[in-house]
Amino acid sequence: MKKILGTSLLLIGMAAFGQSKEDSVQLKKISNEILNNGKGYTELRELTKTIGHRLSGSEAYEKSVKWAEQKLRDAGADKVWLQEVMIPVWERGKESLHIKTANGNWKSLKMLSLGNSEGTGGKDVSGEIIMVKSMEEYDKLPADKVKDKILFFNYPFSQSFIETFKGYGDAAKYRTTAASLTAKKGGKFAIIRSLSSAFDDVPHTGAMRYENNVSKIPAVAVGSTTADELEALLKNQKITAKLNSNCGMKGEKLSHSVIGEITGKKDQSVIVIGGHLDSWDVGEGAHDDGAGIVQSIEVLRTFKKLGIPNNHTIRVVCFATEENGVKGGIQYGKVAKEKNEKHLFAIESDAGGFAPRGIALDMDETKRKQIQGWSKLFLPYGVYNFEEQFSGTDLYPLHDMGVPAAELMPDSQRYFDIHHTEEDTFEKVNRRELLLGAAAMTQIIYMIDKNW
Amino acid sequence: MKKILGTSLLLIGMAAFGQSKEDSVQLKKISNEILNNGKGYTELRELTKTIGHRLSGSEAYEKSVKWAEQKLRDAGADKVWLQEVMIPVWERGKESLHIKTANGNWKSLKMLSLGNSEGTGGKDVSGEIIMVKSMEEYDKLPADKVKDKILFFNYPFSQSFIETFKGYGDAAKYRTTAASLTAKKGGKFAIIRSLSSAFDDVPHTGAMRYENNVSKIPAVAVGSTTADELEALLKNQKITAKLNSNCGMKGEKLSHSVIGEITGKKDQSVIVIGGHLDSWDVGEGAHDDGAGIVQSIEVLRTFKKLGIPNNHTIRVVCFATEENGVKGGIQYGKVAKEKNEKHLFAIESDAGGFAPRGIALDMDETKRKQIQGWSKLFLPYGVYNFEEQFSGTDLYPLHDMGVPAAELMPDSQRYFDIHHTEEDTFEKVNRRELLLGAAAMTQIIYMIDKNW
Repeated sequence: MKKILGTSLLLIGMAAFGQSKEDSVQLKKISNEILNNGKGYTELRELTKTIGHRLSGSEAYEKSVKWAEQKLRDAGADKVWLQEVMIPVWERGKESLHIKTANGNWKSLKMLSLGNSEGTGGKDVSGEIIMVKSMEEYDKLPADKVKDKILFFNYPFSQSFIETFKGYGDAAKYRTTAASLTAKKGGKFAIIRSLSSAFDDVPHTGAMRYENNVSKIPAVAVGSTTADELEALLKNQKITAKLNSNCGMKGEKLSHSVIGEITGKKDQSVIVIGGHLDSWDVGEGAHDDGAGIVQSIEVLRTFKKLGIPNNHTIRVVCFATEENGVKGGIQYGKVAKEKNEKHLFAIESDAGGFAPRGIALDMDETKRKQIQGWSKLFLPYGVYNFEEQFSGTDLYPLHDMGVPAAELMPDSQRYFDIHHTEEDTFEKVNRRELLLGAAAMTQIIYMIDKNW
Repeated sequence: MKKILGTSLLLIGMAAFGQSKEDSVQLKKISNEILNNGKGYTELRELTKTIGHRLSGSEAYEKSVKWAEQKLRDAGADKVWLQEVMIPVWERGKESLHIKTANGNWKSLKMLSLGNSEGTGGKDVSGEIIMVKSMEEYDKLPADKVKDKILFFNYPFSQSFIETFKGYGDAAKYRTTAASLTAKKGGKFAIIRSLSSAFDDVPHTGAMRYENNVSKIPAVAVGSTTADELEALLKNQKITAKLNSNCGMKGEKLSHSVIGEITGKKDQSVIVIGGHLDSWDVGEGAHDDGAGIVQSIEVLRTFKKLGIPNNHTIRVVCFATEENGVKGGIQYGKVAKEKNEKHLFAIESDAGGFAPRGIALDMDETKRKQIQGWSKLFLPYGVYNFEEQFSGTDLYPLHDMGVPAAELMPDSQRYFDIHHTEEDTFEKVNRRELLLGAAAMTQIIYMIDKNW
């Protein structure tokens, strides 16, 4: 028995080694192809420079739908189609924020209304600013101190986390809840310090939401240095703020996610790779999430170009309306359920086009362990972290249906300097970093397609 | 025996765990201090914006010596001093490169003379361009085909390596040897395609050297897109190139490395942390190597600020003249030998101020294995690679004397887009990435100081 076991283990070991070597060669081919011939960077330049930002509901978004259709065809998709999605239409319009200091002069502040916020209907709304540094401090404020005031939530982005997404998560509630919290105590509008890892005067927009049955008052963001200036001013004087904004929800509209696939050679079960096609209405949506879109298309192109025989259907989904409501992701999950499509695996890239460091895995332990068992193959590509357990926002509906889901984990240091700002432009994306992300996505899909 | 062994292992395990937990807490304190209160980014702004590039032998370099002295004192060094170094003085002066195409028109090309190259003495030198794509191709060219010609070495930077330093290493011989190779076959001067991972028109300078007893003809670099244009033009016409340049060696000069230290509490054996203070004469020397300088100073400041009791002397060395001749490093090694100073460990940061990914270890296997045994402590900081075996250029003299040497390994994807160019500016450095590099340096020094 001992001898047989010994031989078996040896054979398993040898098989595993042979397997691993073949995989290692294939992963290198994928990386070489993408670093030398990848089209993702050029396509990102097209998307960002000829279309630019592409808020859901905008004409630019509709242009990006046509663009993505064409790029999926160019990449060699067997089938390309649009998936209908009802999306909320939010518009910004003109907006301004001024403060009046003790000397009586008005001064304009750089600002952005938060996404989905209602505005002032083009009228001036003004009041005295009250600053709090934390939720706890706000909770202690009696309603009569807030009534008719402007609440300034000056919670700083924590620099202590190594993964900046944790700093973002830590501060996110200020963006999502400031308006409703302020309204409940009778305040007129809310100003938040931007969710920014940078020390500059760039305001960051991003989704907020209103609680039911609470008055829909405006919420706006200011950059870090403006927040610091306000804090300094408030130390020794009363400050009046005046907001005039036209933003607001303008109903719903029919729009589309864009889908392209190469049909499985062995079966029709589906592996999803995706990003979201929409962006906020500032900057160019380059890292968020043009990068994820062009990386996903690159995966499909690379399978075709290298003639990798995909056992299963490999499907690229360019999701509509992630930013204000995850509408494309929800609709995709709904349709998948209705059609009873079998999904093997889904991965999204929606954390910036930076050099990849890992792949987060949100699935049962057996599958996680299997993928973690491949991690040595990824180490030469700087991809070493398979320990995190989450997946792309657009994939939660699939994950809730039991589909193993994942997310590419790029280096996070620069993302929240530019996230949801006018600074999220093509120039901030590095070609090799972007393409290495596409390579890591292609490599993991190759392994999943072959082994599952 | 079994029971005793069991207990021993348990005790060892517990001790190891206790140790590791204490270290883990200390590493986090270091990271928190640097990410929240680090001065490296502000200091880098000062160095790059008020002094700028600082070529050895220039007035700016001498200013940077004074600046570094002051910063080391501010950081809390017990002793700060200058170490004399004789350095070669190379000056660029005015330079231009033109080509004449078949239509007879002259066109100016963006270019940089390579560092240490002789020029044309302010006279026009012209000839027909002959292009080769590789060394092998050049070797096959008979001397009569090269005589009186301009040799254009158009070897592309390989995109296939994941670590771009390997692509740089692969192409480096074109920069260092092109002039002498061309001279040996009677050519007039050499043009090289820049050692650049980017596809732009930014020329990269960097050190070249002349072989003994070979005529010192000029060598210049052009950017990738100019190289591509030249290649396209040469397909169907003869091209004349005309160089006029004033660069050249202007003898030697006395200058200084800057050194500061905190004296060891237990003994006077020395741990060196360093970077090089000089830069090329284009851009601002921000990543190369202002980053390494401010990170090294940050290590010292962090030890003082947190009151970490250093057993050994922790010494920051801002090396003179790494770029053209490693003169500061060589001199430092020489003086250390003369004084019979015991050096425990030396680490340099000279690969850019990007997010750290590893620490290369050039030392005996016992010490390597010990440090690799600490690697789990570094994983939360994204520092996972302790497998590479090299150390900083300025540390080779120490390493040759048997000192365990190391180098910080930042992410390398962006470095060779900007290395030795006008693009190596402060704006290309991200605050958190730079500071995380300083944190990794401080963390490894903490572990070494405590355990060696």
